[in-house]
Amino acid sequence: MSIRRLSLNQATIKHADLATALAVTSGAGIESIGLWREPVAAVGLATAATMLADSGLRFSSLCRTGFVTDAEGPARRAAIDENRRGIDETAALAAAGAPGSAAVLVIVAGGLPEGSRDLIGARERVAEALDELAPHAAAAGVTLAIEPLHPMYASDRAVVSTLAQALDLASPFAPETVGVVIDSFHVWWDPALLPSIARAGAEGRIASYQACDWRTPLPADVLLSRVYPGEGMIDFGPMTRAVEHARYRGDIEVELFHAEIWADDPAAVAASTVRGFAAAVAPHLADSTS
Amino acid sequence: MSIRRLSLNQATIKHADLATALAVTSGAGIESIGLWREPVAAVGLATAATMLADSGLRFSSLCRTGFVTDAEGPARRAAIDENRRGIDETAALAAAGAPGSAAVLVIVAGGLPEGSRDLIGARERVAEALDELAPHAAAAGVTLAIEPLHPMYASDRAVVSTLAQALDLASPFAPETVGVVIDSFHVWWDPALLPSIARAGAEGRIASYQACDWRTPLPADVLLSRVYPGEGMIDFGPMTRAVEHARYRGDIEVELFHAEIWADDPAAVAASTVRGFAAAVAPHLADSTS
Repeated sequence: MSIRRLSLNQATIKHADLATALAVTSGAGIESIGLWREPVAAVGLATAATMLADSGLRFSSLCRTGFVTDAEGPARRAAIDENRRGIDETAALAAAGAPGSAAVLVIVAGGLPEGSRDLIGARERVAEALDELAPHAAAAGVTLAIEPLHPMYASDRAVVSTLAQALDLASPFAPETVGVVIDSFHVWWDPALLPSIARAGAEGRIASYQACDWRTPLPADVLLSRVYPGEGMIDFGPMTRAVEHARYRGDIEVELFHAEIWADDPAAVAASTVRGFAAAVAPHLADSTS
Repeated sequence: MSIRRLSLNQATIKHADLATALAVTSGAGIESIGLWREPVAAVGLATAATMLADSGLRFSSLCRTGFVTDAEGPARRAAIDENRRGIDETAALAAAGAPGSAAVLVIVAGGLPEGSRDLIGARERVAEALDELAPHAAAAGVTLAIEPLHPMYASDRAVVSTLAQALDLASPFAPETVGVVIDSFHVWWDPALLPSIARAGAEGRIASYQACDWRTPLPADVLLSRVYPGEGMIDFGPMTRAVEHARYRGDIEVELFHAEIWADDPAAVAASTVRGFAAAVAPHLADSTS
């Protein structure tokens, strides 16, 4: 089964530095990697870009910026500046990656501001931030990819909770400039998922597809509850076929936050990721026989 | 501030028997109670109905049946039978409650069947169960009230995850026979909440409104994460006003699953419920000045 489109998101091997992450990814036969800003910053952007170019890997996305739900003020200005830096980093890394790399910056909206219950207002702040950031992203050739997070994170992490909502937020902008991330872990439960994927495809806004499984009972820290594709309750068939039918042909990341996976050897994690992807996701890809 | 429409759901004082629950509710000045099947069964339905009648309280709902996601077979037959008993119990209790009681049976869909990943199929099983149960409910004058649960319960407790989905499931049936529960804890995050509430009102399907707050970080057992109205992140204003605008005029339950609340004295819990409701919910009711 082809794993040609698999990309290892660096968060899956959280404790590996950039050099290790690149080596482990290549070593597992994976052709693409999704990077995080912190390990890139640890070596410096220019060095990271060179290391990525030397690895021969494609670059599938940079995680992440966003966190733009605060009302106007110094905290919001700092967040906007952080997003601008993320845009520039994404452009540099996408240029350094192998052909087929994607200039995609993942946007996590942010939760309710401290002490606030104004969910509707927080969502408006996100729309305003996109309005402010879109020209910079367009000039840099970067796609701001809004990631709806599972509704259990609506208060403390992301007020964008469904794919339909993300598409509504993206709608004022060109699809090359503002798109969406479809992360199975976050959206698998959505009764409107398949029509929303079809809409995302028709609007040309699928910037990233991430295949991460959901398993209950949830652990005490619900942030750390993702498991390898095939080890949880998600049926990757209908969703993956819908994404394919929506003409997404980019890389498919596996991004796992899980204490036990993080404690494991990075090379073993990469190998498990390959196995999970090959078994649960790859059979549903249009090019599964290639 | 009027608490005339407040109903204490018995789950909030889980460890109280029926006699205590009725006494504590009356003692706190609350006029209505939502009952659970287990404490009713503990005294027997006829006795429970007499006790309820003697209390002078309104009856706002019976919790709960449902759990109808299994494929055809003995387990599904047993679940359907359990739902039929729940319908009959609801009719008897509603007849025994004070004027203004509601013959509402809360339906929790059930999660994925053991070992299954077929979320779409499980949702179809729920639709089929409603089809089978609706004639019995109609004959008994009982409303089957579908409760969408928070998406974090989609795999293990309820495959009905949004108000829009619940309304779609209800749509083949008369609104007196199949309605919906709007529980703030479960739906507060929904970007489509306000239009869905408006739709529920226009279709005459709001069978119950429950005001329970959401607070993060979530405890280790995410089932036990509800707090008194006003103690969490939910803004009860827009939601409550939307429910009012949708012409719901029934009782409003407070139903809290929380280990610390359960460990507290039931009378103290009832008093805290009154305070929370009066502060966070009552001001948004159309009759708030009455």
